[in-house]
Amino acid sequence: MEKIKVAVLGATGIVGQVFMWMLSNHRQFEIAFITASSPRIGKSYGDDARWMLPFEMPDNIKHIKFEELDYSKLEKLGIKVVFSALLSEVAMRVEPELRANNFWVFSNASALRYDENVPILIPEVNIESMDLIMGQGFPEKGFVITNANCSVTGLAVALAPLRKFGIKEVFVSTYQAISGAGYPGLSALDISGNLIPYIKEEEEKIDIELKKILGIEADVFPYCVRTPNLFGHLETVWVKFRESVNEDAVIGAWENFKMEELDIPSLPQKPIVYDKRVDFPQPKMSFFGNPPGMPVFTGRVRKEKDRIGFVLLVNNLVKGAAGGSIQNAEAFIKRFGG
Amino acid sequence: MEKIKVAVLGATGIVGQVFMWMLSNHRQFEIAFITASSPRIGKSYGDDARWMLPFEMPDNIKHIKFEELDYSKLEKLGIKVVFSALLSEVAMRVEPELRANNFWVFSNASALRYDENVPILIPEVNIESMDLIMGQGFPEKGFVITNANCSVTGLAVALAPLRKFGIKEVFVSTYQAISGAGYPGLSALDISGNLIPYIKEEEEKIDIELKKILGIEADVFPYCVRTPNLFGHLETVWVKFRESVNEDAVIGAWENFKMEELDIPSLPQKPIVYDKRVDFPQPKMSFFGNPPGMPVFTGRVRKEKDRIGFVLLVNNLVKGAAGGSIQNAEAFIKRFGG
Amino acid sequence: MEKIKVAVLGATGIVGQVFMWMLSNHRQFEIAFITASSPRIGKSYGDDARWMLPFEMPDNIKHIKFEELDYSKLEKLGIKVVFSALLSEVAMRVEPELRANNFWVFSNASALRYDENVPILIPEVNIESMDLIMGQGFPEKGFVITNANCSVTGLAVALAPLRKFGIKEVFVSTYQAISGAGYPGLSALDISGNLIPYIKEEEEKIDIELKKILGIEADVFPYCVRTPNLFGHLETVWVKFRESVNEDAVIGAWENFKMEELDIPSLPQKPIVYDKRVDFPQPKMSFFGNPPGMPVFTGRVRKEKDRIGFVLLVNNLVKGAAGGSIQNAEAFIKRFGG
Amino acid sequence: MEKIKVAVLGATGIVGQVFMWMLSNHRQFEIAFITASSPRIGKSYGDDARWMLPFEMPDNIKHIKFEELDYSKLEKLGIKVVFSALLSEVAMRVEPELRANNFWVFSNASALRYDENVPILIPEVNIESMDLIMGQGFPEKGFVITNANCSVTGLAVALAPLRKFGIKEVFVSTYQAISGAGYPGLSALDISGNLIPYIKEEEEKIDIELKKILGIEADVFPYCVRTPNLFGHLETVWVKFRESVNEDAVIGAWENFKMEELDIPSLPQKPIVYDKRVDFPQPKMSFFGNPPGMPVFTGRVRKEKDRIGFVLLVNNLVKGAAGGSIQNAEAFIKRFGG
Repeated sequence: MEKIKVAVLGATGIVGQVFMWMLSNHRQFEIAFITASSPRIGKSYGDDARWMLPFEMPDNIKHIKFEELDYSKLEKLGIKVVFSALLSEVAMRVEPELRANNFWVFSNASALRYDENVPILIPEVNIESMDLIMGQGFPEKGFVITNANCSVTGLAVALAPLRKFGIKEVFVSTYQAISGAGYPGLSALDISGNLIPYIKEEEEKIDIELKKILGIEADVFPYCVRTPNLFGHLETVWVKFRESVNEDAVIGAWENFKMEELDIPSLPQKPIVYDKRVDFPQPKMSFFGNPPGMPVFTGRVRKEKDRIGFVLLVNNLVKGAAGGSIQNAEAFIKRFGG
Repeated sequence: MEKIKVAVLGATGIVGQVFMWMLSNHRQFEIAFITASSPRIGKSYGDDARWMLPFEMPDNIKHIKFEELDYSKLEKLGIKVVFSALLSEVAMRVEPELRANNFWVFSNASALRYDENVPILIPEVNIESMDLIMGQGFPEKGFVITNANCSVTGLAVALAPLRKFGIKEVFVSTYQAISGAGYPGLSALDISGNLIPYIKEEEEKIDIELKKILGIEADVFPYCVRTPNLFGHLETVWVKFRESVNEDAVIGAWENFKMEELDIPSLPQKPIVYDKRVDFPQPKMSFFGNPPGMPVFTGRVRKEKDRIGFVLLVNNLVKGAAGGSIQNAEAFIKRFGG
Repeated sequence: MEKIKVAVLGATGIVGQVFMWMLSNHRQFEIAFITASSPRIGKSYGDDARWMLPFEMPDNIKHIKFEELDYSKLEKLGIKVVFSALLSEVAMRVEPELRANNFWVFSNASALRYDENVPILIPEVNIESMDLIMGQGFPEKGFVITNANCSVTGLAVALAPLRKFGIKEVFVSTYQAISGAGYPGLSALDISGNLIPYIKEEEEKIDIELKKILGIEADVFPYCVRTPNLFGHLETVWVKFRESVNEDAVIGAWENFKMEELDIPSLPQKPIVYDKRVDFPQPKMSFFGNPPGMPVFTGRVRKEKDRIGFVLLVNNLVKGAAGGSIQNAEAFIKRFGG
Repeated sequence: MEKIKVAVLGATGIVGQVFMWMLSNHRQFEIAFITASSPRIGKSYGDDARWMLPFEMPDNIKHIKFEELDYSKLEKLGIKVVFSALLSEVAMRVEPELRANNFWVFSNASALRYDENVPILIPEVNIESMDLIMGQGFPEKGFVITNANCSVTGLAVALAPLRKFGIKEVFVSTYQAISGAGYPGLSALDISGNLIPYIKEEEEKIDIELKKILGIEADVFPYCVRTPNLFGHLETVWVKFRESVNEDAVIGAWENFKMEELDIPSLPQKPIVYDKRVDFPQPKMSFFGNPPGMPVFTGRVRKEKDRIGFVLLVNNLVKGAAGGSIQNAEAFIKRFGG
């Protein structure tokens, strides 16, 4: 079977690198076009990207050359699917243009996330949000589908199978990895051996996106803190349900959350992996799982009074960013064809 | 005025070191006796303690020699006040003996913290808990007064001036420093660039001690996480009050929490320092304040629905451990005389 | 082809874990027996080992059960090849016994490294040191072959193709990873955000082992420093050669160091990978290469006066420990048969 | 005695902050004027500087307002002494202007360090280098005196009392703190849990400045590596002397290096503090000493063949930067009057 040619915009940033790594040996997709900022045009990925991931750059992407974004060139190459790892301010300008030029944009940028025509999609959580695209003239016309904010993604996945209990209140405190701020991102002088209890607009995103994605009317009480680990966001969570729920019911809901019906290549057999060890999950497991970094890990489930507490770990770059967008493209194509 | 001679038990551990540092130039107290494990007996503090604090060992404690714990020797030296930085399992055996031998024990150990005759004292929060000693035959008889667990201390201080609003529920997620686990404590392989969402019995301590110290009947929902910073516990907190409260009322209550009536040397002029910067407090401020490490820093106050959220920072070794015990001794002697 | 059954002694330590990971899918070897300290006997590897590596425990080793070391059992299972990741004090007692019982011991322990009957083998550097085994009654009798100290291994490999220039003096300063001290190893309080310019007996090992392995009479001037990175030892090196040598000659010698004649599965195509980037190699590449962690990376070659300087990176757990021993076993069996 | 009014240029950078902290309670100097980049003009230091030091901002500098650099204003205020913590590219333009306007500039910038009219001064090492100013029309005319590069400073001080043995060769490998790169400096993604074996132009500076300051004709072999500690540069050093020297002679030379004749306030009683512990000095001692951060700490002295090795620690921000410049001003004024 021939692979679907795709473009990656903003391929040198840390999320762009995860797109490149994941797409380098993807079953359905094949990288046919990459962009970066002007000084890099014409250089090859292997020579010019400052690789930040904790494993080696795949050989088969090293030769790919950076090109200027050119819609007619994309068309000539037969590319419809565009993955965007653009910075928000660039995405704000470029993504609507891509849509207007009839491309299918799967974006990690937050720029259009609150546009009423743009679904925030997590396939195993709100696959129905794709319907929004239907009213937009597809397949002739283009569209933008975004993945959720990295912190929200982990929380939304962990809560998805618990929706049936009736979610009323969610308290969440995050422990967010350095890589979440991009590159260069945080100064080492600020974060080494320190904690920073503030991440711009992150708490607002959690409140808005979580409710939209889960389709619930809950009260959300978030605090977001930057911690000195490189990869993986940890979150402590307390939830109040409408129904009476115990620990076993929660663990059972996670264990049975299989989603085989989605049948897309990058969704793990178990999208939520419950870890029964007393002191897990931990960020050093961020790239564990199959595909690596794709499961949300949960643990330390407790019942206190009428609340259920737990801890979760989400890979902020994979499931919480590039990997999420790739799943979105897979799910879209599964449903509507490539 | 002559200083009161005191003993420090367990002077080489990291809390013991803070006792030594703070008592090295204390207005009222003078170190006259120190103990450590047997192999150190006879050696001098300067030669044998592995100093872990982020500033230099004071010169005037270097010559002090480790001695075996000997009640008659303490008596001969005229020592009544004993500070205990013993490990819990040792404290469990030694502290009752000290009490039985009529010493006044100010302890950081958790061993006797839940003994019904032992107050958990934070002077600016529950000074009245000292009354418990009165029924125990003081001044002829001895007693044990403990400080609270390090995480609880910060939370109890920050909530003390808010009790008047009626505390109903407290959600707290901690970000706890490496030094809280003592020395050698955590393996660098476990915690470097990682987070560990579990600290043995810590969540139980928060639940029990917080309510006991504040004298309230609230529901407490804690999660405790070890983070890779050396000093200073950060906590994110959401509180539900019986009364309707806004951010200004909370900040005002902190600003006006002066406690001059206590009039003890180691209590800062402002026990709670509210930091209005958007991304503070941060652990790198752990030893800020006067005396250093004694204020609890708060910040990021927010109102969401009917809840108030904030972030706090407490120095786990000073206010949350040795410094707390020294304040306890000061407060006791202020009230009942030395 | 049937695989050779092997035993791993001390399988839970961090070097033991690397043995388990590398042998879990080895072309020639198959784990048939593992030991750990008594409390673990009977438990399975997956349940009881505290996994420390930066990637997931392979599924196919999880079921293997810890057994007590029993020579007759090993014999019954048809095991000749024993990999030892024992602590030095245990190895000192156990490895001579294994040899006396006719096992072929490939050890990472330093216990017997200076025994005159024990080669310190790095296949691509001193393959001839295996001859020492010949006088010891092989194949009827057993033997012990050790790999070199982790710091020495990187240096010996990088210098091996430069021996032809006549090595007279070697200055080496090491930057050694936390994992080199084993588990629990270093206290996080000691090493977080700090440097410790001392590693017990390490400088002596570099001096003795380097000259023995390279078979040279050079002067060696080492300093060893512990640095707060988890994996990968970096070393800065200045060498004085008898011949006049320039940077290109050095780089050329590395590039041409192929060793295809060895033809063993775990030796990379290029045992030395020269990195021309100005600020590399870096420890974050520790597990790069194929097999991962097996190449020695070099860079920053400079000529000053009559000296050549360079920087090297060696994975202290793979090439510098378990991986080195596995290569030793491969090389031995290649030469003498299994 | 009235204090001498001084200006601090570039007061918000991390070296600027050290100037502010050290001058806030200086015996001779008084901060009367500070500059920062334009957006800060008019704001007060306490409100607008992002404080990075590991202790609190002194209260008495918080009210000082940033001003635009205005030579006539400086004159009106009676300011002659100007401390420069400007970035090199700014210093390159501003410092010659200041000199031309007859100010006495004590600079930490490397911009003019290689100007033939500019001494690189370390008072206890090359006090005679000040003579260079004499031919420049002082006291009517202005001048620039720089301190040395941070790594060089530690090495030059440690070697100063050893010059008498005849220094022939110096091998030095550095372990340099994050703060040496300024703020924001290094991305946390690059340096957290990593090592970077390259610091732009640093090795060249060591070679050139060391020989110039010590006034020697030695061969210098440096490697510079960035390590993930915040403060304090460690260096491993091997020296070849013309004379035969043993460890005791080296330690004795350090112990007797008193320099009381300099008699300036910021020079420690012992500019070199030899630490006999087996695993010291360590960067966590960076701000130890009196004044804090001013001594150079040495340790681990060894003799191998005809070479002496040792380890040193220098506070890169204090003795190696702002503190060095303050000592320079003190020494200059001591000799020539204020």
